[in-house]
Amino acid sequence: MSVITLLTDFGLSDAFVGTMKGVILGICPEARIVDLSHGIAPQRIEEGAFVLRTAYPYFPAGTVHVAVVDPGVGGARRALIAETSGHRFVGPDNGLFAHVYAKETDLRVVSVTEPRFMLPEISNTFHGRDVFAPVAAHLALGAPASDFGPEIDDYETGTVTEPEVHEGGITGRVLHIDRYGNIITDIGDALFLENTRGKRFRIRLADLALDRVSASYDEAAAGASLAILDSAGLLEIAVNGGSAAETLGVSTGDRVDVEVE
Amino acid sequence: MSVITLLTDFGLSDAFVGTMKGVILGICPEARIVDLSHGIAPQRIEEGAFVLRTAYPYFPAGTVHVAVVDPGVGGARRALIAETSGHRFVGPDNGLFAHVYAKETDLRVVSVTEPRFMLPEISNTFHGRDVFAPVAAHLALGAPASDFGPEIDDYETGTVTEPEVHEGGITGRVLHIDRYGNIITDIGDALFLENTRGKRFRIRLADLALDRVSASYDEAAAGASLAILDSAGLLEIAVNGGSAAETLGVSTGDRVDVEVE
Amino acid sequence: MSVITLLTDFGLSDAFVGTMKGVILGICPEARIVDLSHGIAPQRIEEGAFVLRTAYPYFPAGTVHVAVVDPGVGGARRALIAETSGHRFVGPDNGLFAHVYAKETDLRVVSVTEPRFMLPEISNTFHGRDVFAPVAAHLALGAPASDFGPEIDDYETGTVTEPEVHEGGITGRVLHIDRYGNIITDIGDALFLENTRGKRFRIRLADLALDRVSASYDEAAAGASLAILDSAGLLEIAVNGGSAAETLGVSTGDRVDVEVE
Repeated sequence: MSVITLLTDFGLSDAFVGTMKGVILGICPEARIVDLSHGIAPQRIEEGAFVLRTAYPYFPAGTVHVAVVDPGVGGARRALIAETSGHRFVGPDNGLFAHVYAKETDLRVVSVTEPRFMLPEISNTFHGRDVFAPVAAHLALGAPASDFGPEIDDYETGTVTEPEVHEGGITGRVLHIDRYGNIITDIGDALFLENTRGKRFRIRLADLALDRVSASYDEAAAGASLAILDSAGLLEIAVNGGSAAETLGVSTGDRVDVEVE
Repeated sequence: MSVITLLTDFGLSDAFVGTMKGVILGICPEARIVDLSHGIAPQRIEEGAFVLRTAYPYFPAGTVHVAVVDPGVGGARRALIAETSGHRFVGPDNGLFAHVYAKETDLRVVSVTEPRFMLPEISNTFHGRDVFAPVAAHLALGAPASDFGPEIDDYETGTVTEPEVHEGGITGRVLHIDRYGNIITDIGDALFLENTRGKRFRIRLADLALDRVSASYDEAAAGASLAILDSAGLLEIAVNGGSAAETLGVSTGDRVDVEVE
Repeated sequence: MSVITLLTDFGLSDAFVGTMKGVILGICPEARIVDLSHGIAPQRIEEGAFVLRTAYPYFPAGTVHVAVVDPGVGGARRALIAETSGHRFVGPDNGLFAHVYAKETDLRVVSVTEPRFMLPEISNTFHGRDVFAPVAAHLALGAPASDFGPEIDDYETGTVTEPEVHEGGITGRVLHIDRYGNIITDIGDALFLENTRGKRFRIRLADLALDRVSASYDEAAAGASLAILDSAGLLEIAVNGGSAAETLGVSTGDRVDVEVE
């Protein structure tokens, strides 16, 4: 079995995603195709990179992950395969795999240049269909990454924000707002626990100050704010039964502080 | 073949749903996974229960239905398997299976307690991934429900509204507004026919009064309101080529009357 | 392997689409089901026809394409199978296959009348579940189209707008706005190239005039408008990094001119 995942900013109203699946099944009929998200905001590479990071570790070894958030389609940017011992990633060379590059150690990156793994005609505007889908299908069929083009090391590494640890605590940023309005920060659980263990602390974000971390949303009263260590291993600010982002007026990129006494 | 369906309030912008599928395919590579809906309004358990009820009877025997609308995630609420002769249901113990409990007679409910059917690490916020997906995959692989924990009978039965039959007719409620703005009531077709057979009747909702039931939407003039017995076996109010909910200003929970002379 | 695609205006909040998949898998467990789009605007047959046209040629030979945008459900309109050497199409007889009829030469159309290929009970409002899904599943299982009912030639051909070529150039229409706000016209790339080759031209739409065609979105400055020959083989107006439809205030049906000197 070969699993292929798809993550794009294509939305689901057009048939872009379905068309990619048609191309994949024409080449690799046994592929199991799974959608990660197609609701990445148009051309928001960093959002795509974050959502990919939350999902890919939960897929079986050998999975091929195709990601297409690709404002430079048809221009000079290269097409890539990034390969680790467990996963393969296919997409444009624009930083979409930033978290993979930051986290995986046994990484090899290939610039895809071999036309035989692409559709015969390459459009100006839809490399998801003409390049990335067929490349992923051929990978899933068993072609080794080295067949697709030369190995490179000057790929676009992209942006992974890291919180700053300083004397007074930790200063981070809001990475993502999820469907419920939960506010996901870039402060990892290990970093948070290490810097607050045995100490009094205050988490500050907009007007909010919290001095404890909850073990479940419903530890807070209905409508009350809370902090929680979430399923992506990150410090999250939520409102029990509501939207924290709306309640606090917070957006991606806003500052979060953990003040330690 | 094992079919696993997924119904959640996760939306499709984050990769929550895709991640659950990665976990399932890692355990049960042959599972056929079908999305029922991920557009349930956040934490609206009754809406999830209704949508599940419209869909599950159309799946092959043995299907495993995973439903996650789970405001109490990480707290004290239990994880359940509800089993009938035809279907298995996996989700939180919060009334999400209310219609299953109300309708199915050969029912057995198990509280899932065995950690060997869950992921090794259970997060505070995402039991869809850490508990419900792996439990469903193990069920689909063939593990009997009784292996997952003790049978219970004090599960949360949830809410199934029933219309009231009285001297003057039937009084019901709006259960659901669908994508087209069609207004689905809780008045079943059998109940409606039984109480109106051979009689003159008036269906009243907001400012509307209708004295007949149509056999198709286009029996009404374009833009006109009509009543129809719908695909879920319920009395529905629609507008031919338009949105009845918008036209009438009606929402879930509003009162509907069938007045019989 | 049998691939079945689905295109509807059902949206993804209700379980209409999932229910169709349950019916299909009950009849043809091996079917590989692919969503093309369920975000067609309610009852917009022409939009569904266009989106189907962009996708179906990319699917393997033998694929069954089910399309349901069906304002006349339950009324007098017929159910159809349209068959070419490469593809089968299943849906209502309302022009949804207009582009297939216009483009495919080896076409045969059957009116579906045999109840043995439908569910035992046919609702008034959901033939996607009760008629089209089971018909598609039986086709995918191998039943020949001629078993489903009589061949017909008086099917509803629907609308395919064609640009007008005249002395001063080409006059076309906006066919579709995609997720990014790109404006897709009905002017085909071959027609455009043939009529502008070796000549100076101006593409006019709303307030915009463009005298060249770009090879990629990023040939234009960020925020600037451009024309491009797109992945559907059509002339497209876009804004690099933005929404052309919003910038220009353009909608489906608006006029586009290619003025040639």
